[in-house]
Amino acid sequence: MQLHPIGTLHTPWRSVADCPRNGRQPNPAPLCTAVVLPEFVEGLRSVETFSHLILLYAMDQVTSPELVFTPPFDDTPRGIFATRSPRRPNPIGLSVVALEGIKDDTLMVRYLDCIDGTPLLDIKPYLKTTDCEPDSSMGWLRRRA
Amino acid sequence: MQLHPIGTLHTPWRSVADCPRNGRQPNPAPLCTAVVLPEFVEGLRSVETFSHLILLYAMDQVTSPELVFTPPFDDTPRGIFATRSPRRPNPIGLSVVALEGIKDDTLMVRYLDCIDGTPLLDIKPYLKTTDCEPDSSMGWLRRRA
Repeated sequence: MQLHPIGTLHTPWRSVADCPRNGRQPNPAPLCTAVVLPEFVEGLRSVETFSHLILLYAMDQVTSPELVFTPPFDDTPRGIFATRSPRRPNPIGLSVVALEGIKDDTLMVRYLDCIDGTPLLDIKPYLKTTDCEPDSSMGWLRRRA
Repeated sequence: MQLHPIGTLHTPWRSVADCPRNGRQPNPAPLCTAVVLPEFVEGLRSVETFSHLILLYAMDQVTSPELVFTPPFDDTPRGIFATRSPRRPNPIGLSVVALEGIKDDTLMVRYLDCIDGTPLLDIKPYLKTTDCEPDSSMGWLRRRA
């Protein structure tokens, strides 16, 4: 499966080392933008009716995948699929973001944690009926949450 | 960006027409499986500590994208990015699933809605600290929720 960017994400972070651990870590969370390519702008119709979106993006700065590693602030090796590390076999990033506004081809959002210039792959409406699990466990991250 | 399957999803649905509208629609939700390829099984370490996961998969049965369309049970044309329709520019599916167990290379999960044999692209832990928005709006779907 070959992916093609539908746009670009703009954030305050210029390198992977600058990025926060997650999009809710910075307080206040800075305003970021998602700029959609002209040929896909028509697909934004009714997106403004949602308060939250799921953005998928290509973490194209990632080198090789790392199937098992010991995360920072942890002392146990974890599988990549038990972490949100970018060094995944398919480095697709996912952020649940708050939509602050749309103007033409540009979405204003909060809670991104990726580097500036990241290729955007998809925009999905966040639906609390299927995407929200308030009683879910934090797994091995519980002790660190 | 070129994607490579890390495994395969097995569900009761043999065609796109058979699939439920979403993974929470069938009641009770049937048990489905995600079988991970041998070379990626090591990456499952500690996945069993989570109650919920996010699965990304390739909706490879999809024909051409449809940027604007009128959804079933609606009377207004909507942009593809305001829907969860599979006919997206990058047809990556996303399901928040409940993890019922892991045995070797196989995850038992509930709440999938894709067809049997769908290529699995990624497994992420569901983290309520960043993925859960109980106060989010249902947008244009509000009237149908």
